Amino acid sequence: MRIALGVRYNGQAYDGWQSQPSGRTVQDRLELALGRFTAQPRIGTLCAGRTDAGVHGWMQVVHFDTDIARAPFSWMRGPNRFLPDDIAVQWAQEVPPEFHCRASARARRYLYVLSQSPVRPSLDSGRVGWSMHELDGAAMRAAALHLLGTHDFSSFRASACQARSPVKDLRRIEITRLGDGPRCRWHFEFEADAFLHHMIRNLMGCLIRVGQGHAPPDWVREVRDARSRERAAPTFSGDGLYFLGPLYEPHWGLPQEVTLGSAAASYHGPP
Amino acid sequence: MRIALGVRYNGQAYDGWQSQPSGRTVQDRLELALGRFTAQPRIGTLCAGRTDAGVHGWMQVVHFDTDIARAPFSWMRGPNRFLPDDIAVQWAQEVPPEFHCRASARARRYLYVLSQSPVRPSLDSGRVGWSMHELDGAAMRAAALHLLGTHDFSSFRASACQARSPVKDLRRIEITRLGDGPRCRWHFEFEADAFLHHMIRNLMGCLIRVGQGHAPPDWVREVRDARSRERAAPTFSGDGLYFLGPLYEPHWGLPQEVTLGSAAASYHGPP
Repeated sequence: MRIALGVRYNGQAYDGWQSQPSGRTVQDRLELALGRFTAQPRIGTLCAGRTDAGVHGWMQVVHFDTDIARAPFSWMRGPNRFLPDDIAVQWAQEVPPEFHCRASARARRYLYVLSQSPVRPSLDSGRVGWSMHELDGAAMRAAALHLLGTHDFSSFRASACQARSPVKDLRRIEITRLGDGPRCRWHFEFEADAFLHHMIRNLMGCLIRVGQGHAPPDWVREVRDARSRERAAPTFSGDGLYFLGPLYEPHWGLPQEVTLGSAAASYHGPP
Repeated sequence: MRIALGVRYNGQAYDGWQSQPSGRTVQDRLELALGRFTAQPRIGTLCAGRTDAGVHGWMQVVHFDTDIARAPFSWMRGPNRFLPDDIAVQWAQEVPPEFHCRASARARRYLYVLSQSPVRPSLDSGRVGWSMHELDGAAMRAAALHLLGTHDFSSFRASACQARSPVKDLRRIEITRLGDGPRCRWHFEFEADAFLHHMIRNLMGCLIRVGQGHAPPDWVREVRDARSRERAAPTFSGDGLYFLGPLYEPHWGLPQEVTLGSAAASYHGPP
């Protein structure tokens, strides 16, 4: 049978999601925990969206196949006993064999949390990005309009990216300021069919450049049309990046997280 | 001259505020950073409220005396270069020699952040307390009424407490639920003239016992009147505890942080 899990984690201590020889990845820890719970050597998993080193998972979704029969509750509670403090399975559910956590995802959502302050992060170090200077929300929103829709995002793609096509459909960018005054937070929400490697961190670099007044909003359109990584701003820190999770068709019956956007003010998720 | 600093820190990596032979405390790191910035061996500091191991500082206030003349901005920016990522000076200000960060404080405020969820914390591990079971807000608020005012808080006092008197004036307990459903957060805000050692963690243990339905609200009054530590619930985890900071008379001219309470919903501070 096929089991899907929702997994939450703080990425600060890990070399990203995907299994590495170091063993210091979230996938390694999850598979070892599943193995210990089931007394198997190791259970291989697939995930909906690989996250980079230091990037956090609000609702990563994985699936695996197994002959071991356990109640969904046990597939949640059991592995959690063997996972480190900063990783926990949130839910588990049996899914039809046609379900595939990556291929069945219709969209993916990410949140970037940014601290605007003359002082660098401390209490929230590793969990927020930082801008020392005040950001211009209207300019960033104007720039974001050039990114919405179906485009070739080669300018925002890491050289190591393995995606077949650089064309993605960026359906939503919502930029919300939380709090007044020079010290505040910004939430940047992104939704697309899929993302390229480093795409959000590269988009963030460009939006921040516009927000700090170092480039006009239209510059982002020029960068986009150039289809060249060399034209974009440097890759922004991954500290404030959260994979909110994939979106699936309702007929799979998987738990769906609260929508952010205008609800951001009443949202008490990460960080 | 006398300099006051506002200091923010994540307590997870430290053995509390107060200097220890281990050197693994926030005070040790701050004094070493001040020493490196001023090229002095070490600058001794006093603080407004010592925090336990693992407890976080949203706005700790310290003061020290020095002959070294620097602009307030430099007393903030300079030490931050030598502090670890999880500690940062937020502001610096020269104060009159009559100012004393501890003695001049008229009140202290703490926030306890609690995650209510069938799943233990992960992304926010070490930064929130946890209740696996749903909490009854009305029952906890009724219990809190027995704690407000001037009382002998011996029942909520750690044996190691060095305070001269167990009588404190607890002026405010505000309990706010953030979010609906079985998975939500709770904010517990406390304000008193001063707190005993472990007092908030002991109060939290009792409030949670009432909130989980294991004792009626009036039981908290019985515990209070017994003036015996043996009657109270076990000391609750320090993970979700934040020292929001001391309150001073406005004439000192020190920065004051945003008031929480009814503003909690629009508050984007810790964690």
